[in-house]
This record gives sequence, C-alpha cells and structure tokens, in this order.
Amino acid sequence: MKRIGVVLSGCGVYDGSEIHEAVLALLYLDKAGAEVQCFAPDKPQRDVINHLKGETAAGEQRNVLVEAARIARGNIKPLSELSVEALDAVVFPGGFGAAKNLSAFAVEGPAGEVEAEVGRVIRAAVDQGKVVGAICIAPAVIAKALEGTGRTPKLTIGTDSGTAGALETMGALHCSASVSEVCVDEGNRLVSTPAYMLGQSIAEVAVGIEAFVTKVMELA
Amino acid sequence: MKRIGVVLSGCGVYDGSEIHEAVLALLYLDKAGAEVQCFAPDKPQRDVINHLKGETAAGEQRNVLVEAARIARGNIKPLSELSVEALDAVVFPGGFGAAKNLSAFAVEGPAGEVEAEVGRVIRAAVDQGKVVGAICIAPAVIAKALEGTGRTPKLTIGTDSGTAGALETMGALHCSASVSEVCVDEGNRLVSTPAYMLGQSIAEVAVGIEAFVTKVMELA
Repeated sequence: MKRIGVVLSGCGVYDGSEIHEAVLALLYLDKAGAEVQCFAPDKPQRDVINHLKGETAAGEQRNVLVEAARIARGNIKPLSELSVEALDAVVFPGGFGAAKNLSAFAVEGPAGEVEAEVGRVIRAAVDQGKVVGAICIAPAVIAKALEGTGRTPKLTIGTDSGTAGALETMGALHCSASVSEVCVDEGNRLVSTPAYMLGQSIAEVAVGIEAFVTKVMELA
Repeated sequence: MKRIGVVLSGCGVYDGSEIHEAVLALLYLDKAGAEVQCFAPDKPQRDVINHLKGETAAGEQRNVLVEAARIARGNIKPLSELSVEALDAVVFPGGFGAAKNLSAFAVEGPAGEVEAEVGRVIRAAVDQGKVVGAICIAPAVIAKALEGTGRTPKLTIGTDSGTAGALETMGALHCSASVSEVCVDEGNRLVSTPAYMLGQSIAEVAVGIEAFVTKVMELA
C-alpha cells in the first residue's frame, strides 16, 4: 500500500487550501488504494478572508492546522510530525493558502520564503527520491523550496505567463498544460496539474486531479 | 438543463456542512450537466467547533452563509433568495450543520424546530412536486419540515436505530440503507443516502453520493 502525505494550508480558496482540489485529491487517492495522512503547519494564517465578500475579515485570526482539520474531518497532524522516510509521496493541493501560509509567494512573489517545515519536507522528499505532487499554485512552493539546490524542477501552473515567469525566476522550468493535463518531471519525481489556475468548473478540475493522482501513484 | 439548488449549512463536519459530502454532491451534479446554485442561511452558527480537538471554540462566532461560501468558492446566495419555482431540485448535504444551523435536531432531537427559511423551501418544493435530496443526517431536517403536513416521507439515515426512531417520531418512514444505497420516496419525490452516517472512507461515501445524484437528476 502506497503511503501518501497530503499537506493542507487551511480551509478555503482565498486564505487556505482550495477545498475542491483538496477533497478531489483525497477522493482519487482513496479510490487508488493509498494510505493517506493529512498534515498542516501549526501556525497562524497570514489572513482570514470573508469568502462571501472576497474581503479581509478584519481582526479575525485563525490557525492553519485547526482550519485544515475541517477538510480532514479531524484526522490531521502537525507538519512537524511528517516523516518523509515513512511516506512514498507528498501531495500539495492549491488555494491561496499554499502561497500565503506555506510560502510568501502571494505577497512577495519569487522573493518570498517558504515556511521552514514545508521547505524541509520538500527538499528531503526530492533528495530521497520520493514523489512530490503539486496542484494549482502549489508548484510555486516547490520551485522556491528547491531554489539554489542545483536542481531545475519542471512544473506547471497552467498557462499564465506572469506566474510561469515567476517560477522560472526561482530556477524552475515551466511547462504549459491544460486543466486536464499533468506535467511530469521524471528526474526530480515531480507531478503537477493546473486545476483552478485554469478550471472553469469542478468537473473540469476533477479530470486533471484524477490524472494527477494516477501519475503520483504510478511513480510512488 | 436541470437547475439544482444546494443548501449548505457552514463549512466543516462538526459545526457546518460535511465538506466531502458537499464537494462530492457538487462534483457529480456538475458531471451530470446540472446548473447548480449554492445557498445558505445568513445567520450565526449555533457554535464553532475546533475540528482538530473536537471541542467548542469558546468565544468564537461565525456566520453560516459566510463559512459556506468557502465550499462554494464565493458563488453562493442567501437562502432567502432561493425561489423554488426557479429550480428542479433542492439538495441538502449533511454534517452537524444540518442538525445545528438548518434545524435544532442535534440539540433538541425530534422536538427541535427547523429554521424558518429552510422549512419554507422544503415544504414549497414538496408541494410543487420538485425533487428534494438529503444526504447523511439532513433527512432529519426534511422529516421535521414535513411533520404535521399529512405527508409520510420515506427517508434513510443509514441503519442507526436511535436516529431512525427519531425520524419516525417526526412522522417519517425510515428505510434502512447501506453507504452505497439510495432511498427513493416516489410519491413525495424525496431521495436520500447515508454517506458519513455509515461511510468509513471518502471513496465509499462517493459511491453513494454518485448514485444519489443520478437518482436526483433522473427524477428532476
């Protein structure tokens, strides 16, 4: 049985994990027979966004791990407990949380640092030849974590030239992909798919995430 | 194109909509070609539960519509704007939110009243021959809304005898069903499935919700 860690970043597209992407990853991993464990950093969210209005909820403060537990139905561990040795692959769903809570990409662009535990997990996984999967904007986190390691990760964030350029600034090679496609970096054992970077509906996004999970499981 | 309303009750199994059930309902409705609109009551949640600890988050207050907007990616309307005439079916995912925010069933049992707008929607839908679908514990809301109307709704909450008995106290007829099965009340045009009342994994729950959506679309 393949053991897969899923790293969440909160609960909600604008300040945490994109919920559809996270749930679809959990669905297809479970259907593929994976043993899944969710993780998230135990730290305050960068912000809280009112998802009805699309505005900052002034004065509200939430914890990334506590909110991510909503997606995981309580079955989640602090990211500090993630042992790369005990897993075959690590998967990062998207949502602004990846670029706000797992890294500072949403605010600082290519200069924004990756959260320390997230960086440790990604570098250890790649060094140990584990599979690392990233959905939507999460490839920006992988690119930043591997910047300066001498590796040239091949990743997709879809087709947006600005974001693709930012990935290349961090030393990655961008491959364009449609919502139903998966980008595979065989050498670094990376798998990525654009999901809601391009998807117009949940059914469209599901096609890409199913293909993504199939590839992660095949390589793992 | 079938027009389906999905009524959410927050975001998270312990104080809102069960996220997997809601997302899977949205997925299979979209795959089936439905035109979906999400709704939720614009009111305070009964409580806020820390999903990591499974405990009440003392002093926290959240709004049902604002939190449900996380699942709907912001594309959601207040339940007061739901026009039954404009829809072919109304679907209620489960989670404690159905029994805490759409009704008082979780706290008061069969005596607990249904939220006024929720009751209006369910009774109007049944009176107009629209399809009403309910997942997990949400059939308890349907039963209560139809209590005293002279109808005998046939519904399932799985196999739990205590909850089944509570439904019958409210005038419903309970039919036992497994996680992959759907209970259909042809006369009242009701469809229900147990989901996480019985499901041990997201893949199991997905089988039942896919069958549920197929039946809702067939009847609608």
